[in-house]
Amino acid sequence: MKLEKLVGDRFRERPADCALDSHALMLRGGYMKAVTAGIYSQYLPLRRICRKIEEIIRQEMDAIDGQEVQFPVALPASLWEESGRYQSVGDELLRFSDRNGTPMVLGMTHEEAAVQLVREYGKSYVRYPFMIYQIQTKFRDEGRPRGGLIRVREFTMKDAYSFHTSQQDLEQYYSRCYRAYERIFARVGLPQVVAVASDSGMMGGSLSHEYMLLTPVGEDSIAICGDCGFRANVEAAETIVSHTAGEERPLTPVQTPGVGTIDELCAFSGTTPDKTCKAVALEKADGGLLVIFLRGDLELSEAKLTALLGQEVRPAALGSGSGLTAGFIGPLQLPEDCAVLFDRSLEGETDLICGGGKEDLHCTGLSMHRDVHPDRYHDLAKARDGCICPRCSRPSIRISRGIEVGNIFQLGDKYTRSMGIQYLDGDGKLQYPVMGCYGIGIGRLAASICEASRDEYGPIWPVTVAPWQVHLCCVRADDPETHRAADTLYHTLQQAGIEVIYDDRDVRAGVMFSDADLLGVPVRAVVSPRNLQQGVCELSARNRSFSEKVPLAGAAERISQLLERLKAEVNRQVPER
Amino acid sequence: MKLEKLVGDRFRERPADCALDSHALMLRGGYMKAVTAGIYSQYLPLRRICRKIEEIIRQEMDAIDGQEVQFPVALPASLWEESGRYQSVGDELLRFSDRNGTPMVLGMTHEEAAVQLVREYGKSYVRYPFMIYQIQTKFRDEGRPRGGLIRVREFTMKDAYSFHTSQQDLEQYYSRCYRAYERIFARVGLPQVVAVASDSGMMGGSLSHEYMLLTPVGEDSIAICGDCGFRANVEAAETIVSHTAGEERPLTPVQTPGVGTIDELCAFSGTTPDKTCKAVALEKADGGLLVIFLRGDLELSEAKLTALLGQEVRPAALGSGSGLTAGFIGPLQLPEDCAVLFDRSLEGETDLICGGGKEDLHCTGLSMHRDVHPDRYHDLAKARDGCICPRCSRPSIRISRGIEVGNIFQLGDKYTRSMGIQYLDGDGKLQYPVMGCYGIGIGRLAASICEASRDEYGPIWPVTVAPWQVHLCCVRADDPETHRAADTLYHTLQQAGIEVIYDDRDVRAGVMFSDADLLGVPVRAVVSPRNLQQGVCELSARNRSFSEKVPLAGAAERISQLLERLKAEVNRQVPER
Repeated sequence: MKLEKLVGDRFRERPADCALDSHALMLRGGYMKAVTAGIYSQYLPLRRICRKIEEIIRQEMDAIDGQEVQFPVALPASLWEESGRYQSVGDELLRFSDRNGTPMVLGMTHEEAAVQLVREYGKSYVRYPFMIYQIQTKFRDEGRPRGGLIRVREFTMKDAYSFHTSQQDLEQYYSRCYRAYERIFARVGLPQVVAVASDSGMMGGSLSHEYMLLTPVGEDSIAICGDCGFRANVEAAETIVSHTAGEERPLTPVQTPGVGTIDELCAFSGTTPDKTCKAVALEKADGGLLVIFLRGDLELSEAKLTALLGQEVRPAALGSGSGLTAGFIGPLQLPEDCAVLFDRSLEGETDLICGGGKEDLHCTGLSMHRDVHPDRYHDLAKARDGCICPRCSRPSIRISRGIEVGNIFQLGDKYTRSMGIQYLDGDGKLQYPVMGCYGIGIGRLAASICEASRDEYGPIWPVTVAPWQVHLCCVRADDPETHRAADTLYHTLQQAGIEVIYDDRDVRAGVMFSDADLLGVPVRAVVSPRNLQQGVCELSARNRSFSEKVPLAGAAERISQLLERLKAEVNRQVPER
Repeated sequence: MKLEKLVGDRFRERPADCALDSHALMLRGGYMKAVTAGIYSQYLPLRRICRKIEEIIRQEMDAIDGQEVQFPVALPASLWEESGRYQSVGDELLRFSDRNGTPMVLGMTHEEAAVQLVREYGKSYVRYPFMIYQIQTKFRDEGRPRGGLIRVREFTMKDAYSFHTSQQDLEQYYSRCYRAYERIFARVGLPQVVAVASDSGMMGGSLSHEYMLLTPVGEDSIAICGDCGFRANVEAAETIVSHTAGEERPLTPVQTPGVGTIDELCAFSGTTPDKTCKAVALEKADGGLLVIFLRGDLELSEAKLTALLGQEVRPAALGSGSGLTAGFIGPLQLPEDCAVLFDRSLEGETDLICGGGKEDLHCTGLSMHRDVHPDRYHDLAKARDGCICPRCSRPSIRISRGIEVGNIFQLGDKYTRSMGIQYLDGDGKLQYPVMGCYGIGIGRLAASICEASRDEYGPIWPVTVAPWQVHLCCVRADDPETHRAADTLYHTLQQAGIEVIYDDRDVRAGVMFSDADLLGVPVRAVVSPRNLQQGVCELSARNRSFSEKVPLAGAAERISQLLERLKAEVNRQVPER
């Protein structure tokens, strides 16, 4: 199509409030427009990119025996009450009432709808296993939408649900889906995406993985072992720290006026955070207090704590009646009604500095086994640089940042049991099937591709998802001969089934090229009076992998070759099925 | 794919509460499942049908220079306040608040979102005309969802919006879209769909058309002239009735105890409804009373009245203070503060029976010009059988029923003016663009195809939208030789790129064939031991246009030919672009 007719504006200035370059480029390039916070309309180029991503995903889902279905966006709340999530999920679940006052929700994920759809079908074991998926709009009422399409409130998602008669069968299918995901990310031009073990969060279930695009601007933190390649979300990675053998010293109260933080404490006493015992005071849903102690060089993982407790907690407001003094909470002076948990980082530690239980008082020489001897320690801290790898036991954990572009979960029978879907097994006994679920956000994936593949001038779309394959520029369209030559090439390319965006506007070459950079189409073809004099046309790759002049007559054929080469480069990265 | 793995149940019994056969068949065939009133999940066969319909629509929209975009499902209410529809649309517009209390709506149509998307782009006349469209989920909180996918609350719709600098340009584009729609309906196998002039309703604007599948089970009534072919929705068709010349008679009060309806009145006085004057009492938004008089053989068109008044009215509750007595309202005894309108059917009528203004009293001999002489008459009645055609003036109007499968509207500047989108014209003056909008409901179209093309055993899907092209039955799959032969044909067809659903279950032939009937795939191929003995396979069309035995070796090739023939039959009905 002609660029002149393309609806949407392209502009030079970086819009305000764009933390991510992909966000800025996708606004500057006329890909999308905000309608309200975290909700966007898409222009044609992004729609084309998303449709290509969807088609790749569809092919890979079909290849692992997935069946495309469609669930509603608006669901009756009663379905979510069956699973228990109507209560357990927070404000992200958009709740409303229809005209008759019936409570409803906007689907943010569709486990309940999937179970509802197959409740009758799945009554006999002979029907299993099966997988259904949809590509559909979802709504998640994010408190802080940000990063353009990275964290939005309304988005299109591919979500898949598999049903099995055994955990073993689920695991087998899970592996197939794991590989299908690797193929999907490679096919859309992100072979560098890695799978990391993850926390299952509100989805429930046991094993789960996130697919991460590693980038410093990512929202997630991932623990990666530089030695053995172990990878896990810091919320899910077992945290193991090294201990320096220390001598025991007597427990000694120390006056510490105004020393309320770990940093202040280290400065005051000339020690390092790993020789301190940190307290985090929390309040449970029932109002009871809970204090977590962990080594001062570590941070509490809320995800691990929530998983352990089975409930969410919030920071405690420490009033005078609490018996706790913020900044000086120690393990030896806790009120009787206060629950307490100890992180594994403290196990065996000696000679720590800890709170003394009242204002301006600490204790030195705390020995965990001598003075505290808790019944057990829990893994409650976030992994950090230098932690010991839980797989190879070397202190080679490094924390990277990543954008989650997909996830897969083994759900077990959480939904089938709560919603009462059962099948008759071969022996005529009623059983609950087990489920897996598998998600990819289409818009976020498009934005992640842009984030990973761009330069200062615009996105560099991989050929497999680019909105068009060729960007044809007619420089000096006011010159009739040049315009004719460019028109001819345009029609030849179209007849060859190549998707062309054709810029024959009467504008300066600079404007033309910066627009082309913003559209990020893999092959650029330039017809100009100067080229025409030599009977050539200039071909170049948006990713700078080639730049050449070819005879105008053979340009279409050469473009086809170059496109095949670009496709082959992407496909080389795609693992076998 | 194998039928054995197809998720969804097929069954024989007609489900309760299905007024439409298409509704019953699509439930019985495992196409969809209700989630709650008017909201369905789709299984694979329907998803495939809908995707094919969507692709045909996309091609035709692209061919008239449409650009695919995507608008959000959840929209800020502020956009709808700009256009005024937040107030003017009733309960069908689903209103809710997000977690921050911001009022939002679920999009039921996207004029506002379209204007928002192009507000900046459309600032100069050189950018016009352009058309953007989307294929996206919509929500309309119907009070009475019914008919399966015919009237639902959540649905997928193709909605398109064109922008122009003049009414003339809009009309030109409107004609292109009109033809594109004819092509779409023919391509999906509904060449019998007709365009009828329609009322613009809540969309605003002037000229509009509905595309109707004529069927006795349709919800809409269409006036069609048997002579000249004039067609219009009864809500939009000018109603012209013939008058029998009558003599004038004196106005005479008559006691009519308990005679409150037109039927009772005719029976009581031995006359016909066209010699009576009917009153309809309504209440306006401001609480004021309004009485409409029309000839007793006609019905009031609420759509025409709403269009005339520019507001909706409701039936009046006639209390004692109203000055009106239900069943006996007459044009000569109206209270002073009561507004009154007269339908054109009364113009020139003489010797009518009308209400006498109080309980149990009528008048005979009412002469409109002598006794009432209203300033003017309005076209307020629904057309009915025998009305006079407004185009050819013959009394050949017949009322047919139809399902609306698409609509196109000339919107004028209703939205651009209210939302303040303007462009600079060639003379540097600010102007409001004019808009057109063009909708097709995907699910309703699928259901309409089923309604139009079926037999008692199931749908007969046109080859262009069928979920698969070939239904391969292996009768007696327990016979190894038969199973092998069917497997071979299955793989040959798949390699030829033909979509096959393969039934190799070990079930009776009757079960197999009734399942095939319910899936409605155009070509059926049967491999059985008996056929195999003769070295043949049986091919038949779901639409009964052929049935033949062909050598098994050449079956795949013959199937390709037959599919081409079926496609050609559909394409013959498709008008040129």
